[in-house]
Amino acid sequence: MSNDIQEVKKESSSYATGLGSLESVHVFAPATVANVVCGFDVLGFAVNEPGDEVIMRRKDKPGITISKITGDDGRLPLDPAKNTVSVSVQHYLDSIGSSDIGLDIELHKKMPIGSGLGSSSASTVAGLFAIKTLLGDDTDPMKLLPFAMKGEEMACGHGHADNVAPALLGGFVLIRSYDPLDVVRLPSPKGLYCAIVFPDVDVPTREARQIIRNKIQMKDAVTQWGNIAGLVSGLFMQDVDLIGRSMQDVLVEPVRSMLIPDFYKMREIAMENGAVSFGISGSGPSVFAFTRDEETAKLITQKLQQHLTNIKIGSNGYVSPINDGGPKVIG
Amino acid sequence: MSNDIQEVKKESSSYATGLGSLESVHVFAPATVANVVCGFDVLGFAVNEPGDEVIMRRKDKPGITISKITGDDGRLPLDPAKNTVSVSVQHYLDSIGSSDIGLDIELHKKMPIGSGLGSSSASTVAGLFAIKTLLGDDTDPMKLLPFAMKGEEMACGHGHADNVAPALLGGFVLIRSYDPLDVVRLPSPKGLYCAIVFPDVDVPTREARQIIRNKIQMKDAVTQWGNIAGLVSGLFMQDVDLIGRSMQDVLVEPVRSMLIPDFYKMREIAMENGAVSFGISGSGPSVFAFTRDEETAKLITQKLQQHLTNIKIGSNGYVSPINDGGPKVIG
Repeated sequence: MSNDIQEVKKESSSYATGLGSLESVHVFAPATVANVVCGFDVLGFAVNEPGDEVIMRRKDKPGITISKITGDDGRLPLDPAKNTVSVSVQHYLDSIGSSDIGLDIELHKKMPIGSGLGSSSASTVAGLFAIKTLLGDDTDPMKLLPFAMKGEEMACGHGHADNVAPALLGGFVLIRSYDPLDVVRLPSPKGLYCAIVFPDVDVPTREARQIIRNKIQMKDAVTQWGNIAGLVSGLFMQDVDLIGRSMQDVLVEPVRSMLIPDFYKMREIAMENGAVSFGISGSGPSVFAFTRDEETAKLITQKLQQHLTNIKIGSNGYVSPINDGGPKVIG
Repeated sequence: MSNDIQEVKKESSSYATGLGSLESVHVFAPATVANVVCGFDVLGFAVNEPGDEVIMRRKDKPGITISKITGDDGRLPLDPAKNTVSVSVQHYLDSIGSSDIGLDIELHKKMPIGSGLGSSSASTVAGLFAIKTLLGDDTDPMKLLPFAMKGEEMACGHGHADNVAPALLGGFVLIRSYDPLDVVRLPSPKGLYCAIVFPDVDVPTREARQIIRNKIQMKDAVTQWGNIAGLVSGLFMQDVDLIGRSMQDVLVEPVRSMLIPDFYKMREIAMENGAVSFGISGSGPSVFAFTRDEETAKLITQKLQQHLTNIKIGSNGYVSPINDGGPKVIG
């Protein structure tokens, strides 16, 4: 990782004095679904909706301030030393020798925190893409990944990349290896839609990780890597049937599904209404289904939310194609 | 599996009376490398050399005879009830209602038995492709897979498909699932070559399987499925570097390599001489290396064989591109 940071420093040296022409920028970064059922800790994809927004403005006084956070119910710190967005941005600025630039950040959370949709990753990536854009730094977005992973480490206690990498690069992303970091952008079939439902229950990421077994059966692992190989093949072949058949998880889902209300009933509802596949988004509690079109995704979102209402659980629902470009400037 | 066999029966009914026009056929079927380092039990590929040959002739008297086997040092049974080739062919004939056809088989082994190169698979596939050709049966070769797996079960004690499927279909083949059987043909980069060396030591398949741990660490499994996802991506992307980086095995190779003389020294020799990757073929003792061209594959084969000679172990060496078409009629 230190090598990557070195490289950014070198390539970005012309921006070190903050000579970029923009005074402010408004950025969107997408929510992400990690694991994708059979790709625990190595696979994720981004959606167009929901996502977080960052407005970043230059200011005269050196240092980063956070003037406003909305949509977080007061849960996120305004202290720039404690907020993952400002901390990641500061790491980036330090790496290019621009530590003393003056910045103010507004963070607008457009998705629930603790939803399993890469909420912290979306905010961090939005912040990093904002500072990159503000400074006119046109190096490969991939170079921001180590800084985004630093933010993830602070937010979740581990520097995983299966949310930040797809949030940053868009589409499906494989993290083949962490040491050295090896990230592969995968294609996805045209027309593939995603229905996402967040049941409003509390599943802390750390606890969802702790309940996973450390020791597993070799035969289950073989099933799992047959499936991830099938899923990756399906993505390249644009074979939605193969994608659906491959999205089975015999290792993590059987444990984590216990933390999600009526998980198997929700699967039944999704599959009966035309889903290609159904599973847990990241560590949950959000669930997602792939569909072949927008209408089916809308129907499934609606049916799942209706079921959750029936069992007296609030929810948020989202319908989106697979995001293709990662973060973008929206103002 | 029974469904697949039913289907063959239906589709092949027009050949049930043995009305095909050929009197005899001479078929080649390729050797195969199972596992491909990070795809234990789910991945394999075929090479052009070595391979086995079957000559099949109609005869008047009903039933199958085996008149000749060469290249086996007398190790394979001429009794058609005990030979995997005749047993698989008989299964196929039974399924299409042609049990009483008269056939004589010659089997010419062109590779060592117990080499880890899918020796029994090559023979079985050659036999099945021969009877299919003799009867003028033009159904999808994929339909022969269940019969070939029956032969594999008889030869190795388990009905795995990671040798028979690539021997039958050519190229790289993923066996995503056994229940139901789900087989995916994968592309491979143009110009990819394979150096194979068989050190003449005894590693029985059953024992090589028994020494593998039943319980493994989740973190190692994650490493492994990151790698197989990377390998499959590399095959689709024709990215030889990614293929090389992905071909690491933290689970099976550390155990099985102990059965192969100077395995890590051979890896060092292969990598120092330009190999993209190096590993065990199937359950060993054969080893293989991928290279970017034929010259490098030749050099590596030569260097590895020289090393084995130095430590007083005999060997066979082969150089081949990835096989593309599976079995073929050669006479």
